[in-house]
Amino acid sequence: MYLGSWLSRLCRGLSRPIGKTPHPIWGSLSRSLSSQRIPEFSSFVARTNTCGELRSSHLGQEVTLCGWIQYRRQNTFLVLRDCHGLVQIIIPQDESAASVKKILCEAPVESVVKVSGTVISRPPGQENPKMPTGEIEIKVKTAELLNTCKKLPFEIKDFVKKTEALRLQYRYLDLRSFQMQYNLRLRSHMVMKMREYLCNLHGFVDVETPTLFKRTPGGAKEFLVPSREPGKFYSLTQSPQQFKQLLMVGGLDRYFQVARCYRDEGSRPDRQPEFTQIDIEMSFVDQTGIQRLIEGLLQYSWPDDKDPVAIPFPSMTFAEALATYGTDKPDIRFGMKIVDISDVFRNTEIRFLQDVLAKPQGTVKAICVREGAKYLRRQDVELIREFAAHHYSQEVLPIFLNAKRNWSSPFAKFIMEEERLELTRLMEIQEEDMVLLTAGEHEKACSLLGKLRLQCADLLEMRGVVLRDPALFSFLWVVDFPLFLTKEESPTELESAHHPFTAPHPSDIHLLHTEPEKVRGQHYDLVLNGCEVGGGSIRIHDAQLQRYILATLLKG
Amino acid sequence: MYLGSWLSRLCRGLSRPIGKTPHPIWGSLSRSLSSQRIPEFSSFVARTNTCGELRSSHLGQEVTLCGWIQYRRQNTFLVLRDCHGLVQIIIPQDESAASVKKILCEAPVESVVKVSGTVISRPPGQENPKMPTGEIEIKVKTAELLNTCKKLPFEIKDFVKKTEALRLQYRYLDLRSFQMQYNLRLRSHMVMKMREYLCNLHGFVDVETPTLFKRTPGGAKEFLVPSREPGKFYSLTQSPQQFKQLLMVGGLDRYFQVARCYRDEGSRPDRQPEFTQIDIEMSFVDQTGIQRLIEGLLQYSWPDDKDPVAIPFPSMTFAEALATYGTDKPDIRFGMKIVDISDVFRNTEIRFLQDVLAKPQGTVKAICVREGAKYLRRQDVELIREFAAHHYSQEVLPIFLNAKRNWSSPFAKFIMEEERLELTRLMEIQEEDMVLLTAGEHEKACSLLGKLRLQCADLLEMRGVVLRDPALFSFLWVVDFPLFLTKEESPTELESAHHPFTAPHPSDIHLLHTEPEKVRGQHYDLVLNGCEVGGGSIRIHDAQLQRYILATLLKG
Repeated sequence: MYLGSWLSRLCRGLSRPIGKTPHPIWGSLSRSLSSQRIPEFSSFVARTNTCGELRSSHLGQEVTLCGWIQYRRQNTFLVLRDCHGLVQIIIPQDESAASVKKILCEAPVESVVKVSGTVISRPPGQENPKMPTGEIEIKVKTAELLNTCKKLPFEIKDFVKKTEALRLQYRYLDLRSFQMQYNLRLRSHMVMKMREYLCNLHGFVDVETPTLFKRTPGGAKEFLVPSREPGKFYSLTQSPQQFKQLLMVGGLDRYFQVARCYRDEGSRPDRQPEFTQIDIEMSFVDQTGIQRLIEGLLQYSWPDDKDPVAIPFPSMTFAEALATYGTDKPDIRFGMKIVDISDVFRNTEIRFLQDVLAKPQGTVKAICVREGAKYLRRQDVELIREFAAHHYSQEVLPIFLNAKRNWSSPFAKFIMEEERLELTRLMEIQEEDMVLLTAGEHEKACSLLGKLRLQCADLLEMRGVVLRDPALFSFLWVVDFPLFLTKEESPTELESAHHPFTAPHPSDIHLLHTEPEKVRGQHYDLVLNGCEVGGGSIRIHDAQLQRYILATLLKG
Repeated sequence: MYLGSWLSRLCRGLSRPIGKTPHPIWGSLSRSLSSQRIPEFSSFVARTNTCGELRSSHLGQEVTLCGWIQYRRQNTFLVLRDCHGLVQIIIPQDESAASVKKILCEAPVESVVKVSGTVISRPPGQENPKMPTGEIEIKVKTAELLNTCKKLPFEIKDFVKKTEALRLQYRYLDLRSFQMQYNLRLRSHMVMKMREYLCNLHGFVDVETPTLFKRTPGGAKEFLVPSREPGKFYSLTQSPQQFKQLLMVGGLDRYFQVARCYRDEGSRPDRQPEFTQIDIEMSFVDQTGIQRLIEGLLQYSWPDDKDPVAIPFPSMTFAEALATYGTDKPDIRFGMKIVDISDVFRNTEIRFLQDVLAKPQGTVKAICVREGAKYLRRQDVELIREFAAHHYSQEVLPIFLNAKRNWSSPFAKFIMEEERLELTRLMEIQEEDMVLLTAGEHEKACSLLGKLRLQCADLLEMRGVVLRDPALFSFLWVVDFPLFLTKEESPTELESAHHPFTAPHPSDIHLLHTEPEKVRGQHYDLVLNGCEVGGGSIRIHDAQLQRYILATLLKG
């Protein structure tokens, strides 16, 4: 089996957005990230301590610090910054220290200096409780200007607003911000913990596999790399797929890699041409085993400054995810579930619902947007209806409930009283809610309502309603995917839902010969807050079964 | 500063060559590699234990094992193998277990089976002390054939000889050998320990940098990757050079990466188009600091089944390495040092030496090959002389000492008695030694003799003399490289010996303006047994100095 998890998608949710931290918690970072011993940040170097680590317990110590001048006030003190925090430096005023004073007073902000001095307490009343080093300051004896700074395109202060373009242009300056430092360290720390869990606790072997390889047909578009031999090309690997299968055949048993992968699919908000996945493959394991492994992996590597992850993660079948959330990656942080209300309208007078329900696959579905009547505007609903018509060729009917529980809808008058009561009961409709109703074939109706559910959530959040707590991390397994799909262009033919090597669900093997389209695969996706962060499957290890699927079912 | 270390070169010396282990020490691998707790190798999977871990302490336990049938004898027992070792399985003979017997007797060797049973002791006298599991065997109750094996191109037995080509063709089978398993695990383990040392002990941040980047002029030939935009190309990075410099500017302070690098230089025995280096960059550190860091890194990550690494490593200047070993990467496991014997021949009658010594740069150099007169043949010496003539346009004169201390050489009769005595004293020449003498300009003569030193070592080892103990790991720092070289095609112009960003030695800065060719750089190489396994330098952080070097000295 394998599980690939997209590191960037996982870390993105955990990282700190720029400018969202009112008081940068300088210095607490490494401590809060690590439950283990604190690393020696000043081994082998010219400094004795980091700026951020100094406390009252260091009083009287002679220290040497290296850092960037964060700011200076009235030539009396300055604040020195390194990636561990800020510390206040007193500029000596006596004649004998004139050269030190000159260096520290003349160096522009963001210049890099090395200073040596004594840790002293701040005068009573001048402590800064918001600053981890706020009880102390440094009485400087010597100073050396390591590098001077010219005027920068923006100040290195978290409260200074910068455009994304400017930040990217001066990436090396942007990295000096607290948030970027936090994010880089967070990722490093999480990956390290994952490695500890896999290598040290569970005996996985980290194997580096080549990235210059042969083309793999059938997957994503690959980058080609011309070789020295004219007309011959390497292909940058989409994933270490084939290598890890060979490692299993080679008896390696437990493999993992933090693997660089390449897909030539252009950049999209959640796609980059190169990305990294935690790539795992195990022998002699079943689906439950791999799910417990991954849960343990995430729990172990979860940053200490976040709420711990509860395991096991909830699990949902693909069928349930589709029926309830209209997607295979539901965000379960909020409800607004899809409800099948076909039975409510069995005897409806509304012609359009009648027509749909008369078809064998016809259903009527709805979501109830809590307080939707209060927060959503007519034009929001118009956009929603246009979206449905444009992308799904589906009609969406809105029903608004005003504060007096009156139903307001273009078709409210056609809804019979008993239908209204049954709908209210089924969907737990309350005052000021809005219901979005659609009718059609199950999958299409669910899929549309799944999209509208997210759009409504976006709209409500724009109006200040908190639906999706960004501090909440709701992991979910989605399981029991269909093994095959019918080809769109030729509905009598099958194609693999994921890939032809996924093993069928053990309970469904008998269906392979009779109703293969009903066979579920041993494939599982890991979803976090509505985002697919990993996925994998149990592989077919039976050559005969593999041959049957490839040759007979997929006509490969 | 940075240090890049080539992982494959480092691990190659530590790995086990195939077929060189008379008794595979199955099962002791993970234990000997790790000083920490033993990982759980059977968590999350169908087995309760690995084949290799079972001992007398497991007696009476019900176990489930998964593995490959290594061999079977007379339908009474078989040996099961997994990547942790071998264990003996007793095939049940009673009627009630007929189906289990059938599976275990009919499955061809290398088939994969799952068996459950009880750990029992072997009958007295049948213990196998050469096998870690040799005190016990498994009384099987159930068996399942997971996969059957056809006839393989070679047997998975370490004593079976296979050609390199066959091994590579069936790589996935070759990986089942003890040595390949050991080597893969060794590398995984060493890299994990390096990460622990850097991240957990010393606060380095593991940052993944892109590999699809812009072309870097001046380095190795790069692989180009066509982009979606016609006429535009990515270049696969030769190293994360620029990124890590930006990270330092960004204040990250301590960066490392196990970095994939690409060079389009064709495959050579020690070069591959893609390779991995431990890439490190630190702020506020000097050369000694980085050397101590690397020594600590290697000591910490050194495998427990090897002798520990002694630190600090010895250090040698480039000048000394050249003068004594004729190379910048001396193998110091053996002597055969180059000796300058110019003074011996100041008054020589040998015309060719006279001519050389008459020139201002002329020197006479020699190496003494211990027992060379005993082990080397005339034709060896002929080949050596041809090599010297062909590659260095240099004359090499051999002098053989026979057992009676007679000198035998085409020019022995021209060597005066006092020269002979002085030479014997200087070079500690003994009976049956051979001296190889050359004359010419210092660097060229040293360089040639450095090559001949290695050739003679190869020849002696082919004849059974042990010069270079493969179990010995002699690390050596080579330091004080020249910062500039004169261009071959234009000797009045300078070029960087390594690259133009290396900082000059602090004691030599004054020479930059007067005799720049004498300036030593703060560059250091790490050499292991004559192989360069790492290197780095302190970078110039002074913009003015950098500009002077680029614009004035290098005329860039």
